[in-house]
Amino acid sequence: MIDDRQRALLPNGLQDLLPPDAAFEAQTIERLMAHFAAEGYARVKPPLVEFEDSLLTGPGRLLAAQIFRVMDPVSQRMMGVRADMTPQLARIAATRLAHAARPLRLSYAGQVLRVRGGMLRPERQFAQVGIELIGAPEPTADAEVVRLAAEALTGIGVKGLTIDLNLPTMVDVVAEAFGLPTDQLGPLREALDRKDPTAVAELAGAAAPLYAGLLDAAGIAAEALARLDALELPAEARRLVAMVADVVRVIDLADLDAQVTIDPIEHRGLDYQTGVSFSLFAAGVRGELGSGGRYVAGADQNGGGEPATGFSLYMDSVLRAIDAPVRPRHLYLPFGCGPVAGRTFRADGWITVQGLAPETDPVAEARAQGCSHILRGADAIPLDAIDIRGA
Amino acid sequence: MIDDRQRALLPNGLQDLLPPDAAFEAQTIERLMAHFAAEGYARVKPPLVEFEDSLLTGPGRLLAAQIFRVMDPVSQRMMGVRADMTPQLARIAATRLAHAARPLRLSYAGQVLRVRGGMLRPERQFAQVGIELIGAPEPTADAEVVRLAAEALTGIGVKGLTIDLNLPTMVDVVAEAFGLPTDQLGPLREALDRKDPTAVAELAGAAAPLYAGLLDAAGIAAEALARLDALELPAEARRLVAMVADVVRVIDLADLDAQVTIDPIEHRGLDYQTGVSFSLFAAGVRGELGSGGRYVAGADQNGGGEPATGFSLYMDSVLRAIDAPVRPRHLYLPFGCGPVAGRTFRADGWITVQGLAPETDPVAEARAQGCSHILRGADAIPLDAIDIRGA
Repeated sequence: MIDDRQRALLPNGLQDLLPPDAAFEAQTIERLMAHFAAEGYARVKPPLVEFEDSLLTGPGRLLAAQIFRVMDPVSQRMMGVRADMTPQLARIAATRLAHAARPLRLSYAGQVLRVRGGMLRPERQFAQVGIELIGAPEPTADAEVVRLAAEALTGIGVKGLTIDLNLPTMVDVVAEAFGLPTDQLGPLREALDRKDPTAVAELAGAAAPLYAGLLDAAGIAAEALARLDALELPAEARRLVAMVADVVRVIDLADLDAQVTIDPIEHRGLDYQTGVSFSLFAAGVRGELGSGGRYVAGADQNGGGEPATGFSLYMDSVLRAIDAPVRPRHLYLPFGCGPVAGRTFRADGWITVQGLAPETDPVAEARAQGCSHILRGADAIPLDAIDIRGA
Repeated sequence: MIDDRQRALLPNGLQDLLPPDAAFEAQTIERLMAHFAAEGYARVKPPLVEFEDSLLTGPGRLLAAQIFRVMDPVSQRMMGVRADMTPQLARIAATRLAHAARPLRLSYAGQVLRVRGGMLRPERQFAQVGIELIGAPEPTADAEVVRLAAEALTGIGVKGLTIDLNLPTMVDVVAEAFGLPTDQLGPLREALDRKDPTAVAELAGAAAPLYAGLLDAAGIAAEALARLDALELPAEARRLVAMVADVVRVIDLADLDAQVTIDPIEHRGLDYQTGVSFSLFAAGVRGELGSGGRYVAGADQNGGGEPATGFSLYMDSVLRAIDAPVRPRHLYLPFGCGPVAGRTFRADGWITVQGLAPETDPVAEARAQGCSHILRGADAIPLDAIDIRGA
């Protein structure tokens, strides 16, 4: 269906979603949003573009190079097209909804645009869908967000879901407790990312056995927690483990159709994250379906801000993890039927397609229009039945 | 809720939709799209940005000054943020769906962005929702599109709908038949727009009585058609009247919960329109809910293209024309309820809000969270009942 000449009509990394994919994406987004709404997450819709500086606060600063900028002729100020909706949510919580009760539960769904595609995700535009839970520091809040992500994804049909829980500050917390020089933190993180025990031993000195133990601890939640319990952790690191254990306990109660794993040193380079973070994967699907975790919303250079957690789902990955819906039956209404002929069928879930000009061969026309049935009298006759009878 | 300082956080004409408005808009869009889908209109989703030149073809050229432009670092070509989705639909029909059967029925819903707001519509971003019916020149196609617009709008609760049918080429067709100098066409159109019979008489010469008759003909469809029939129209103008009469006949006025009017000289300055066009209004709502009509899709400087008709709805106006939905019942689940406590209530349409920390006053916390009920044992107790009993 797509040849190179037609692809070249659009810039790299941007695409048209055609039938039935566009409807499938939209319906899936609304099902996810309904799931979030049912647990009190109220939808907000920030604009596609806003002043550049408000897009670059907090977590947004990591995406500074990914934002398309345009001059606003009205204000004569630079605006940016959002590359991520979460800074917008933090802005709304800190300003327009500053006086709303906490915890504040918000949801969002919208398009984001990036200057360049990534290696794993060549798309430069995708639909981002997620929630934010603002003003709740408790592990019950982390657990609610993880549970909701898992229930929403399994609810739309994702099979083989894995939730990988991480403690993004663990590496730093241990380094600080052992007094490791800060200039070794970067190389140490890289060695841990490579899972390279020799390099870790060289860089971490006295902390090396503990880092090795943290590396080895990764795995299925119950087992990982047992291995973490057996480690001689500094107090702050032990507090992190207790947090993730609390989260696992609440998730267990929810009886989710998902595997929960823990990788205590995974951090994904998102230096704004604190506490428990997580990534969502489906068996056989490349890349993550989404990710989330704890951070401080609305903090600026002077600190401040509120404890927050949340997650974003990337719809291109999510749609790869679920089956497309069954195509509804399509009924052809031959020319002259009149506009009310299809109503009872549509009320029953059929799609009707009205003939707009007299047909020489109504069955052929019905077939060309992708219909499975044709109206004769008051009945929907399958096209196949007509072929078999030679009618 | 909104003060000036908070407004100034966003550029003029751009806004955050807050709860419950954002969910209301999204749900209304999906209800409209479901209506279009049921009659065979398949959803497409073009990207937010694409190469500038493809946004400026056909009807798109009228919006050239409204498009924000960004340089694509990948292709080193200029891209534009769409100000209107219809040129994108025409591009898709002419390229990716060039070999799909005609008539081709497509639907779309998405955000569009404009450099400047208008007098009547200060918003610079709004949700555009609509359909295109491509490759069908028949009046039955015009009628289907008008009927679908009316049924979709009344289906979501619009009351007092008026469909105003227009013949945007009528002024020119009459002028040509009477050999009026082309340099008088602009002033003549303005005089007709002002409904200024003195100026029309001065500018239109021998055609003045006919233009006066066309001005007078405007009104309720049946009466307008009778008045148009009584005029001595040139052949091409008579053909236009026959087209609009056909459309009115096929729409089946008796079955439509809308008033249909005809204004034969209204043209709204959209010089790409041909045949029958229309605008949609609701009683008591400022501005149009949407508009549409016939044009040639995919034509370039060399002509070509396909007969097409369709319409766009502007969601900001549409939402002003319908009642907001009733807020669902909100049930507070006190701290410690466990994640499955709310499931049966959510399945029944409740919204549940989980307490994340031990409450000193659960009822006050429930109220702060906007809940109408609180869970006690297995029951949802109205907060008001608790207050009355002093519990």
